[in-house]
Amino acid sequence: MTDVSATGVSSTEVSADPHSGPHGYMSNKDAYLKRLRRIEGQARGLQGMVADDKYCIDILTQVSAMTSALQAVALGLLNDHLSHCVVEAAVKGGDEADAKVKEAFDAIARLVRS
Amino acid sequence: MTDVSATGVSSTEVSADPHSGPHGYMSNKDAYLKRLRRIEGQARGLQGMVADDKYCIDILTQVSAMTSALQAVALGLLNDHLSHCVVEAAVKGGDEADAKVKEAFDAIARLVRS
Amino acid sequence: MTDVSATGVSSTEVSADPHSGPHGYMSNKDAYLKRLRRIEGQARGLQGMVADDKYCIDILTQVSAMTSALQAVALGLLNDHLSHCVVEAAVKGGDEADAKVKEAFDAIARLVRS
Amino acid sequence: MTDVSATGVSSTEVSADPHSGPHGYMSNKDAYLKRLRRIEGQARGLQGMVADDKYCIDILTQVSAMTSALQAVALGLLNDHLSHCVVEAAVKGGDEADAKVKEAFDAIARLVRS
Repeated sequence: MTDVSATGVSSTEVSADPHSGPHGYMSNKDAYLKRLRRIEGQARGLQGMVADDKYCIDILTQVSAMTSALQAVALGLLNDHLSHCVVEAAVKGGDEADAKVKEAFDAIARLVRS
Repeated sequence: MTDVSATGVSSTEVSADPHSGPHGYMSNKDAYLKRLRRIEGQARGLQGMVADDKYCIDILTQVSAMTSALQAVALGLLNDHLSHCVVEAAVKGGDEADAKVKEAFDAIARLVRS
Repeated sequence: MTDVSATGVSSTEVSADPHSGPHGYMSNKDAYLKRLRRIEGQARGLQGMVADDKYCIDILTQVSAMTSALQAVALGLLNDHLSHCVVEAAVKGGDEADAKVKEAFDAIARLVRS
Repeated sequence: MTDVSATGVSSTEVSADPHSGPHGYMSNKDAYLKRLRRIEGQARGLQGMVADDKYCIDILTQVSAMTSALQAVALGLLNDHLSHCVVEAAVKGGDEADAKVKEAFDAIARLVRS
């Protein structure tokens, strides 16, 4: 993988193709990876609790904590996306701006309902 | 760890101590472990997506799927808990019944708000 | 409407028919009515905000407050229901206990997902 | 109240002051008012159910329906806000764009958590 933080590409030069190049969340990539590793650890911890016959309510408390951690990651990604991708698309205008807003909105609706 | 599935203790003989003995969810233990392993895999998959600079919206879609999977585990555990621990405590009556209902309710409130 | 609080029927004598007699939440009936009237007022307030072209974000803030108020009513009703109807059904045992737990669980699942 | 739909002000001429002038959701004003009136009716219906000692689970079902209706209004307002106010602010750029994105994000976070 290319180290995008070293490419010297400013955010306004970023390709509009959503499947190429660095994305809005890149600045915090390490922080996201760290949080996701912790969430992975929580999933492993839950397996241990089930295997060890821990009390259901204690397991549920951990599931709620893990859900909150995931939700925080989602909100972080969404904030980065709005601040970068959506704002850049809005500046370009036209169909792309509309498409980006629709796409972001659909992601928000899934988040609100999940 | 004692293999509780081999103790031959029927659910009505289970100790009231929430930290000993088999709990309500035990009948589905393997199913819960399987689902939690899949959720752990989703957490690893998300790390791969971030590391590979995948598009934020695609990552968010996976986070929503993982959140739904976690929520389904929580609802399953809660259903088992209500059907077994709470019903058994209610039959015994007294303070224990009240305590179990309060405890279950607190877990539900955390779930609704998380 | 019959004044159920004057029937002198104790909660343990209550009919199993869910559509007759006093229910678990009755003790707080006035408090629920008061909270629901306030929620009705919030719905009217929102109409005023839309009619007066208030700023979308301010309207959204009020919608969130109203949603939280509704959620609090739902959790209160659920707590009452678990403490009374479900516990009473569990004491009676048999199919009715199972049916009440299933019914309560379905309501919880709708709440978690709504 | 001024009939903003008759002002002939195009959306790009709208004042940046969030507390003056027509806002993004205006095109659907009547639809929002209709939905909010229906939600107000649901709040009144819930009071009738409580007053008539209806079964808690039936009341909870109505609360969930009302919560979903409110959430749908919130998502509609948010979509309008992103499509209009946020996109317009992004085009202007600078601090205002940042402020609008932050404000929208905060509203989304409240929605996800409520």
